[in-house]
Amino acid sequence: MESEAAEREAVGLLERLCRRPSVSAEGGALAETADLVEGLLRAAGFETRQLVVDGGPPAVWGELRGTGGRTVLLYNHYDVQPPDPLELWETPPFEPTIRDGRLYARGAADNKAQIALRLAALHALGGSPPVTIRWIIEGEEEVGSPHFDELVRGNVELLRADGCLWEGSGFLPDGRPEFVLGVKGVLAVRLDLGLLSGDAHSGSAAVVPSAAWRLVEALTCLKEPAGRISVAGFYGPVREPTPGELAAIAEQSPTADDQLREAYGVRDFVDGVSGEELRRRLSFEPTCNLAGFHTGYGGPGVKTVLPARASAWLDFRLVPDQHPGEVLDRVRAQLDAHGFGAVEVTTLASAEPAMTPLDDPFAARAIAVAERLAGKRASIVPSAAGTLPIVAPLQQHVGLPGLSAPDNAVYGGCSAHAPNEHIRLEDLGPALRYFEVLLKELGS
Amino acid sequence: MESEAAEREAVGLLERLCRRPSVSAEGGALAETADLVEGLLRAAGFETRQLVVDGGPPAVWGELRGTGGRTVLLYNHYDVQPPDPLELWETPPFEPTIRDGRLYARGAADNKAQIALRLAALHALGGSPPVTIRWIIEGEEEVGSPHFDELVRGNVELLRADGCLWEGSGFLPDGRPEFVLGVKGVLAVRLDLGLLSGDAHSGSAAVVPSAAWRLVEALTCLKEPAGRISVAGFYGPVREPTPGELAAIAEQSPTADDQLREAYGVRDFVDGVSGEELRRRLSFEPTCNLAGFHTGYGGPGVKTVLPARASAWLDFRLVPDQHPGEVLDRVRAQLDAHGFGAVEVTTLASAEPAMTPLDDPFAARAIAVAERLAGKRASIVPSAAGTLPIVAPLQQHVGLPGLSAPDNAVYGGCSAHAPNEHIRLEDLGPALRYFEVLLKELGS
Repeated sequence: MESEAAEREAVGLLERLCRRPSVSAEGGALAETADLVEGLLRAAGFETRQLVVDGGPPAVWGELRGTGGRTVLLYNHYDVQPPDPLELWETPPFEPTIRDGRLYARGAADNKAQIALRLAALHALGGSPPVTIRWIIEGEEEVGSPHFDELVRGNVELLRADGCLWEGSGFLPDGRPEFVLGVKGVLAVRLDLGLLSGDAHSGSAAVVPSAAWRLVEALTCLKEPAGRISVAGFYGPVREPTPGELAAIAEQSPTADDQLREAYGVRDFVDGVSGEELRRRLSFEPTCNLAGFHTGYGGPGVKTVLPARASAWLDFRLVPDQHPGEVLDRVRAQLDAHGFGAVEVTTLASAEPAMTPLDDPFAARAIAVAERLAGKRASIVPSAAGTLPIVAPLQQHVGLPGLSAPDNAVYGGCSAHAPNEHIRLEDLGPALRYFEVLLKELGS
Repeated sequence: MESEAAEREAVGLLERLCRRPSVSAEGGALAETADLVEGLLRAAGFETRQLVVDGGPPAVWGELRGTGGRTVLLYNHYDVQPPDPLELWETPPFEPTIRDGRLYARGAADNKAQIALRLAALHALGGSPPVTIRWIIEGEEEVGSPHFDELVRGNVELLRADGCLWEGSGFLPDGRPEFVLGVKGVLAVRLDLGLLSGDAHSGSAAVVPSAAWRLVEALTCLKEPAGRISVAGFYGPVREPTPGELAAIAEQSPTADDQLREAYGVRDFVDGVSGEELRRRLSFEPTCNLAGFHTGYGGPGVKTVLPARASAWLDFRLVPDQHPGEVLDRVRAQLDAHGFGAVEVTTLASAEPAMTPLDDPFAARAIAVAERLAGKRASIVPSAAGTLPIVAPLQQHVGLPGLSAPDNAVYGGCSAHAPNEHIRLEDLGPALRYFEVLLKELGS
């Protein structure tokens, strides 16, 4: 009964949060949403502040003193992805709507449900949790957290804790709780090459140099056809997975293959991998993705133009102990060494990889609690395939271990970042229970 | 005096023609302009017809019986390029305006001035030329003459002649008359590759296949970094230039380098070529131009997407004895042989290369007349770097030799296809004189 009350409270809070169009990419309603979030934390007994870094929206910080000696830092974000394309939503994205046991709204899954859940759970604990709770809720996660490193460096003392619970994960379809203990880094760059003052008639292609072909050639000096990255020294700092990490990969729920097949219609994976090797690559293989390439004509019919300029968008996913700054230098050196000095390289985004060791005591407790509650082994992801830029600053500047624990009401089909984003109300209970028990366990 | 009257008549006719917005790409005013052109030919004493092929605008055909036994076929087109971008025109594109000795209008240089010039010259000859004149004026040149081959095949008897004068060229800055005796062929294709049902998050790049990278790789199996085309058998049918053709290249006015540098801001030509070798390549080197490549993200900032699809636009310029159909088969085979069977190839445009031998009697007479009139050696281009799709059908189906002679008031700076297209009025006289003398010489 108490749990049902907490679930109802979580739904009410979630609806309030989801009515705010806090789209960080468009600078929409960020200050108002920060005020709402700060008010909710204050009402829950938190001492609060808004932390501001020049050029960014406010982040909400709060502290709720606990009865035990330990401290947990919670991380969330109050911003959301743009709702486009609007015409694909069955109900308006900022009018939260419940139907068929689901709550639909932009931000419902990513990640306002978790803010609501954590607030409701703390309320259920009577406002006096067994550990001290610190909470940082930023407003730029969906645009890559560009000011988070600076925010952390300027507020180290406010963020100290025994460990951090990032945005949460959930329970897998087989009932196993999922934990993510690390994230890949990223270096996103744009390559630009201009060789002419304007597009030329393609009849001159026998003698006039082509920026389009040159940039294609430049790309092939960065990555081999077989898929290996050929930037000199790129793999040098990559550390091998430990036996423990490989064991964790082996013991994961074998869902990744099917999830990717269903999500993207994949027929054949790279190098024909599957299962354990596929999951190992998702956690431990650095990548060089070609996110975009644009040059010349792209319309209907034919236009025989020789393009004056060409641009490519690349993102490298990095693993320990690679660093985006070093990779940038190596990419520049590789282009220069192969005669592509004229290709300009502009950094678009950068984040360090970061992992919490599997035997970290904070992580081990969080995992043990979930396994006991669920009666099943946890599925542990040593590193996500993607990047959460807040992880490395908290590890580097505050020394925090961290992880994504199943204290969130999300599931694979939640349509985060897509139209008709939603949560299943049935997922609220397990997430709430896990969070309450986790706090008690950490406080004991 | 007589010549001045003919020049005035040509300007008046040109203004009438340029007021028609006969933009074939937009289907604008084509039938009306065909009617106008037919009326002008009829007024000049021609027997006329409109030749129609399903799906295309009418072509105007006319015949003016001459006193001699020979027949010349004239080719022109009444359609023009779109006038965009409109804001760059100093006066409206379809309101012909004379200032500083130039007549500005879309189509003035390409190629309504030549229709006006030829009409005025025939009028000056008293409506009874020394050779029989046949004239074909089509309305689709600026969109690649897609119906011209069919039109020629259906009207072979109407087009028989001793030779064809294509759209004309002009006199070079050094006063030498320029002749073009051939054109390259073309095969334009689009390559499409789709590997996923939708764009993926780039975090999955370690295992999810990338259409963007695969298409980059496919392109590199078609052309080597050094510039050679690597499609198996591509160069097989290429015939070597004859000693006469190489001599013609060597004796050309050495203007190509500077024209390309000025037009496109070229710093270094392909392989560092210049002068004679640069001109040889423009006439005799087949090419594989990357006219466009589009995949994934191309906006500001960063979007870490793994593109589901990628497309590339290629045009091959072909030389004798290559054929676009064979090249298409070879491209398909090359992609298949290198594991790129999933890349779809769609033909966008196709034209055969065609050349008139330097020692062709019709061409030799046309050249000799110009050299005598100008008192200078002609600059002879054995083949243009570009494609004029009407040349091969006239050669193949009617057996016509042909060339582009300096009976046109165009010069290098005329801005054909660009804003502020114009002719210099001072160029009308030499073009008119040359055409009159040429007709007399051919009739003698």
